[in-house]
Amino acid sequence: MNQIRKKAELARRASEEIMSISEEIKNRYLVRLSEKLLNAKDYILSENEKDVRYAREKGTKESLVDRLLLTEKRIEDMASAVREIVALPDPIGEVIEGWRRPNGLYIEKVRVPIGVIAIIYEARPNVTIDSLALSFKAGNVVILKGGSLAINSNIALVKVAKDAAREAGISEDIVNLIESTKREDIIPLLKMNDLIDLVIPRGGYGLIRTVVENSSIPVIETGVGNCHIFVDDTADLEKAIDIVINAKTQRPGTCNAAEKLLVHRDIADKFLPSMIKTLREHNVEVRGDEMVQKIVPDVVPAKDEDWETEYLDLIIGIKVVDNVDEAISHITRYGTRHSESILTNSYENAEKFIHSIDAAAVYVNASTRFTDGGQFGLGAEIGISTQKLHARGPMGLRELTTYKYVIRGMGHIRK
Amino acid sequence: MNQIRKKAELARRASEEIMSISEEIKNRYLVRLSEKLLNAKDYILSENEKDVRYAREKGTKESLVDRLLLTEKRIEDMASAVREIVALPDPIGEVIEGWRRPNGLYIEKVRVPIGVIAIIYEARPNVTIDSLALSFKAGNVVILKGGSLAINSNIALVKVAKDAAREAGISEDIVNLIESTKREDIIPLLKMNDLIDLVIPRGGYGLIRTVVENSSIPVIETGVGNCHIFVDDTADLEKAIDIVINAKTQRPGTCNAAEKLLVHRDIADKFLPSMIKTLREHNVEVRGDEMVQKIVPDVVPAKDEDWETEYLDLIIGIKVVDNVDEAISHITRYGTRHSESILTNSYENAEKFIHSIDAAAVYVNASTRFTDGGQFGLGAEIGISTQKLHARGPMGLRELTTYKYVIRGMGHIRK
Repeated sequence: MNQIRKKAELARRASEEIMSISEEIKNRYLVRLSEKLLNAKDYILSENEKDVRYAREKGTKESLVDRLLLTEKRIEDMASAVREIVALPDPIGEVIEGWRRPNGLYIEKVRVPIGVIAIIYEARPNVTIDSLALSFKAGNVVILKGGSLAINSNIALVKVAKDAAREAGISEDIVNLIESTKREDIIPLLKMNDLIDLVIPRGGYGLIRTVVENSSIPVIETGVGNCHIFVDDTADLEKAIDIVINAKTQRPGTCNAAEKLLVHRDIADKFLPSMIKTLREHNVEVRGDEMVQKIVPDVVPAKDEDWETEYLDLIIGIKVVDNVDEAISHITRYGTRHSESILTNSYENAEKFIHSIDAAAVYVNASTRFTDGGQFGLGAEIGISTQKLHARGPMGLRELTTYKYVIRGMGHIRK
Repeated sequence: MNQIRKKAELARRASEEIMSISEEIKNRYLVRLSEKLLNAKDYILSENEKDVRYAREKGTKESLVDRLLLTEKRIEDMASAVREIVALPDPIGEVIEGWRRPNGLYIEKVRVPIGVIAIIYEARPNVTIDSLALSFKAGNVVILKGGSLAINSNIALVKVAKDAAREAGISEDIVNLIESTKREDIIPLLKMNDLIDLVIPRGGYGLIRTVVENSSIPVIETGVGNCHIFVDDTADLEKAIDIVINAKTQRPGTCNAAEKLLVHRDIADKFLPSMIKTLREHNVEVRGDEMVQKIVPDVVPAKDEDWETEYLDLIIGIKVVDNVDEAISHITRYGTRHSESILTNSYENAEKFIHSIDAAAVYVNASTRFTDGGQFGLGAEIGISTQKLHARGPMGLRELTTYKYVIRGMGHIRK
């Protein structure tokens, strides 16, 4: 606890120091960081090897070990991701709005850093560098708590990042790692409202709930996506098959992958057999409601809990609905406000869907997989926010900032 | 608990209903509400009388009873505040940004309501109508929990608001009152993340801490302002006296009133005697550090806790500092990130203060009393946010909204 508080205090001080440094200094640091990552490859790989060996000894699933594993290529990717952040424009200092009041007071709304951001994440060590680099470019200091399996890798990466800071002549406390391997050790961190401005959990549902339920600091929830595609009766059914396959199978482990397919009753007979056949050709397990089972008898019957589950896997739940209204009600009830798509040629239904669906991203005739900072053209992102406060959808550099009002007077007093 | 959950469920449903209603319908309701408040004056006054009588029986301070008291004039003020909100432009539906991607996807960032907002507040019954009207104009539904002393007044006001909703043909669940008089009854409400999108506490430090520490729903903190004015050695000392008097005494009970005065060492001898004399003529109690005591021997010695106290009263703490850097450190340590002002004629010190002070509103040569939605030209406000997420400073209609991305494709899939 005291160790953690001390780190948070150092972070707060570093934040005061870097709050208004120039883009030049920030970029100099990031360039240095990307070079040092490449130079320190052997050291990072050997520390990562310890984590990988320990994970295998513990009998960790190979898919998880793979997320943990670093290779020369993956370190090079990290370094080039940092260089891409160098190229992004600095959001800090932007005058978002400015106006003069009738009494002559001049008011500006200016973009400034948030301050100290705690980022709590799971297996992948590249998140360490990504989070730090993106947050830093927006003028923020990070306190990182990675997954227990990646502890040696994370210590090595943070050491490299701190070395780069010293060499660039800025405080090494711009990045701080909580070296504990126990999740409960984050609890005191989540109460340090005086030192930490924002907590971002990046990971699965369990991690996010722990953070949301225990934090008195503002949290931005990221990532849980029980995304739906609704195929309306007027949809182009050939394109619909392409879109569903793309949304389900292009990267099934991501939060913007489609998890549910809703199909208009009037086209179910015609559409479902070929849709399900194609899904199966892509190794997708299909779970259907009673209507779907009638049309394609050998699908797995969907259970109630299927409708609320984010599979993150090659599984899809399919339900037949009466019309766009039932689709909207179903999504309102079971969706996680991430990404929802309607495939239709009806102007009226498209507009109804757009206005009635409450989600970070609402699509017409497109795959849900586009919900992504890069795909939106916003640059690198730190996650996809599924809550409504502060930032919604892909969170890039701008979403890692806040603003303050600057008011210039000439002896003004309030009348 | 079940009663409260049921109300939150009704609120959620009403929110789905009003999420995209037109400005016309919203204004029709607000006009109806302001008329009904005037028509129901006698009923509201007689219910308010019960609260006032009970408060006096309990021996409540007269200043608090006055905050509770409604009069014909105060009800008329409420009604006209509602009519002013009618005149404000509807923020919903604004396309904040829109762009086309190289692949032809068209992306819009559209302003939408937050959804269901719980507002927890203390004595003044006018907050009931203000909060409801402003939130509603931004398309939101409110769940209100007022102070125990105002319970009968609040029940009456909410009854009028619900009647107006029925008459305007919209759900009466756009406003919901938690009728309990115990503060701990809000705890379950603060955990209903599935039904409530945002909690805004409006009141003193104790209320705000209870909400922040217990809520798993996002909270916007409002109101605590330990605001400073720093008088630099180059300040116009005559104007400085006017500004300090304005900031301290114009309305000492508000969060943007100055609580502390920092004075540059080199002008302390010259400035403090007349400054303190004028403060005393305005009935302000002066508490000073050792240097201040040396210069004006009969001031009350300031204790350590004075530097962190928001008096909300005719009291001011005064400290002599070496220079702008010490002023900045002091404010960074003790300020509440509300409103901070430097009085100077030094360009360098003004810029340094602006860049180094981390607060919602940073002033040069003006009174802190301007931190207010109306004074900024933003229209009515629901409070002053002192945190950094979502909204900072005065929270008007726009700050009661969020956005969603609307993405229109023509069969787009991610490559």
